[in-house]
Amino acid sequence: MSLVVMKFGGSSVGSVERMKRVAERIVEAKRSGRRCVVVVSAMGDTTDDLIDMSRELNGSPPAREMDMLLANGEQISMSLLAMAICALGEEAISFTGWQAGIFTEPAHGRARIVRIEPARIQAALGEGQIPIVAGFQGITEAGEVTTLGRGGSDTTAVALAAALGADLCEIYTDVDGVYSTDPRIVPHARKLKEISYDEMLELAHLGAAVLHPRAVEYAKQYNVTLVVRSSFNRNEGTLVKEETSLEQGIVVSGIAADKNVARISILGVEDRPGILAKVFTALADEGVNVDIIVQSGVQNGKADFSFTVAKQDVDTAIRVIRDIRGEVPYDDATSETGLVKVSIVGAGMVSNPGVAARMFDVIAQEGVNIKMVSTSEIKVSCVIDDVKLNEIIRALHTAFGLDTAEKAFVGGPAVRR
Amino acid sequence: MSLVVMKFGGSSVGSVERMKRVAERIVEAKRSGRRCVVVVSAMGDTTDDLIDMSRELNGSPPAREMDMLLANGEQISMSLLAMAICALGEEAISFTGWQAGIFTEPAHGRARIVRIEPARIQAALGEGQIPIVAGFQGITEAGEVTTLGRGGSDTTAVALAAALGADLCEIYTDVDGVYSTDPRIVPHARKLKEISYDEMLELAHLGAAVLHPRAVEYAKQYNVTLVVRSSFNRNEGTLVKEETSLEQGIVVSGIAADKNVARISILGVEDRPGILAKVFTALADEGVNVDIIVQSGVQNGKADFSFTVAKQDVDTAIRVIRDIRGEVPYDDATSETGLVKVSIVGAGMVSNPGVAARMFDVIAQEGVNIKMVSTSEIKVSCVIDDVKLNEIIRALHTAFGLDTAEKAFVGGPAVRR
Repeated sequence: MSLVVMKFGGSSVGSVERMKRVAERIVEAKRSGRRCVVVVSAMGDTTDDLIDMSRELNGSPPAREMDMLLANGEQISMSLLAMAICALGEEAISFTGWQAGIFTEPAHGRARIVRIEPARIQAALGEGQIPIVAGFQGITEAGEVTTLGRGGSDTTAVALAAALGADLCEIYTDVDGVYSTDPRIVPHARKLKEISYDEMLELAHLGAAVLHPRAVEYAKQYNVTLVVRSSFNRNEGTLVKEETSLEQGIVVSGIAADKNVARISILGVEDRPGILAKVFTALADEGVNVDIIVQSGVQNGKADFSFTVAKQDVDTAIRVIRDIRGEVPYDDATSETGLVKVSIVGAGMVSNPGVAARMFDVIAQEGVNIKMVSTSEIKVSCVIDDVKLNEIIRALHTAFGLDTAEKAFVGGPAVRR
Repeated sequence: MSLVVMKFGGSSVGSVERMKRVAERIVEAKRSGRRCVVVVSAMGDTTDDLIDMSRELNGSPPAREMDMLLANGEQISMSLLAMAICALGEEAISFTGWQAGIFTEPAHGRARIVRIEPARIQAALGEGQIPIVAGFQGITEAGEVTTLGRGGSDTTAVALAAALGADLCEIYTDVDGVYSTDPRIVPHARKLKEISYDEMLELAHLGAAVLHPRAVEYAKQYNVTLVVRSSFNRNEGTLVKEETSLEQGIVVSGIAADKNVARISILGVEDRPGILAKVFTALADEGVNVDIIVQSGVQNGKADFSFTVAKQDVDTAIRVIRDIRGEVPYDDATSETGLVKVSIVGAGMVSNPGVAARMFDVIAQEGVNIKMVSTSEIKVSCVIDDVKLNEIIRALHTAFGLDTAEKAFVGGPAVRR
């Protein structure tokens, strides 16, 4: 009998009515002959409401207490969901993170799962019950409640699927699946039938909010097959798995944009070993996440380099760079906002030369200048001025054959340069 | 350094503003040189809101899931209160029932505490932290979350005070203390300076809602000194302890009334051994709580007897009595509602004959008939028709010298018959 982990996000259980529908869906899955383990997020705005209350009491609440507080959101929804399922005649039993044996690092607010001891879940399955597990939370060896940070419930679901050896992990959300790009920008964006972990990872990192990168990483690491689908309809969703059908000839699977981009440039840095390490260690120590790094050629023993950070980290980054000027001599440091990053992602581009060139061409035809470029085997990202972003996304969508139906698209000339 | 357990009820932490005031009060106690352990209830209407949601999903939710759900109420308030205290510069750390080592029976919704392993609380105290413990909840040996039922947070506080060997257990509530009777009925009702466990137990059972009977029993059993006081002002409150100052000459400490009273009478029951046991075992099996039992004399080998139950249990009780007619033959069974029970309570009445007679006299002077009487060493209860109850309470308050100031009252003639 197949075992499936079903994860329902906050909007899927955002009201009593929606929770009833979710309960019906779970009962239906069970009665169709599957063994089901459910992971659930906090209802709708619960988490935000709890955060608001905490801010009124303490401007910088202790991380431990914040975890103690936020864990209640999932615990409320899990017990309510269990009740809703019981009302339909199936046996359901809810488990907190600690009851489900989800052990994490002690890092409050952003704990990583270290191991799962799913004995109670297995016992419940053995008795024909439907275990409902609180997402987003775990426990440390010392008995402290932790939360996993953004996207934590996705990670709980994938980690549980891995620990239980589940056949499938279904991520139910408020969209139909993973799209070739944001349908608000390109109305004819296509829902992808399937996508590889690596592609999904790039898209997830690039701001496609359907799946959290950490959950995808976890799925890749443990080879958990994911399905992203809507809890509001019966549409098929998008399959995320190791091998996708490259023979379909899809070069670019999706286009993503990130508007939270700022560029920092350090000019005239002395070119000696260890300089870059010093800069980026200092930034990491202050919690500044660096994305793209570009170094220009060396002239007169001096180099320029630039990197991107999130907009809210610009001030910290500049301060860090000023602070280390004694150790790392340079001529000048500047920052620039008003930028965006647009990326094309696709496992197919490995074996297709000229994909990057075509992307640059499309952007140039819109008259927009490219400031930075970063490439991987399955991705090309360009940092550009935040002008005509939507036009560029639409143009890329067309250029890489994503507008056309899947059949027409196979081997289409636009992507075969 | 003295150790005090401070318990704050739901109305005391009913809003962010109130929670701030409670935090200030705790910090003040700490800075005055006491070690403080705090027990907190769910904020205001949280528990009722959770119950409402559950009812929408399941008319008869499983007791286990109900406990999983309701436990969140206290967990939210404890973490918020910890944050509020931290904002004032003291270290506070919140503990769920399971983290605080509060082990209970497995009876969901009405679990009794079986033992407390307060190692984490003691460790926190050792580090100068203020432990904030979720009231009302515990854990079974099997790792199941339980709740203690009505008044559970009082019980948590008293049990913790006993386990920690605290010097004092302060119950903060929305009234100033324990009154000689309901101040809404007798505006000049006196706040009692002190009261014995047994008196408090009688008053608690009789409907004075300030302290739950189970908590008082626990306090008596472990000799925990209690103070009932308001969280909204600095008034002194009422001390509840083993020995009170009988030399003050107080015969009656308080007057209580219970309006939820119905009488069942079984007439012409065959008088043979074991008959009563059969009746009351059958009632207990159906969850019917019986209060006062009165048996009349035997005539022609047959007896009449009456007992009181809560109004909502009348139908069940009558059904049970009909069901056992085969085993327990009787002539007729009747029920009567529209009754109240009025009681006088006082440790001083043990050594004062004529207290009951004076009470009957007061009721007679109001022209009200007494239907049943029950007495203990420290209590006289009369079941009467629900007419002129407030007049009777006021007359009793006067007759037993409770109207007068404490000084004038001592040895006053009204209570020395």
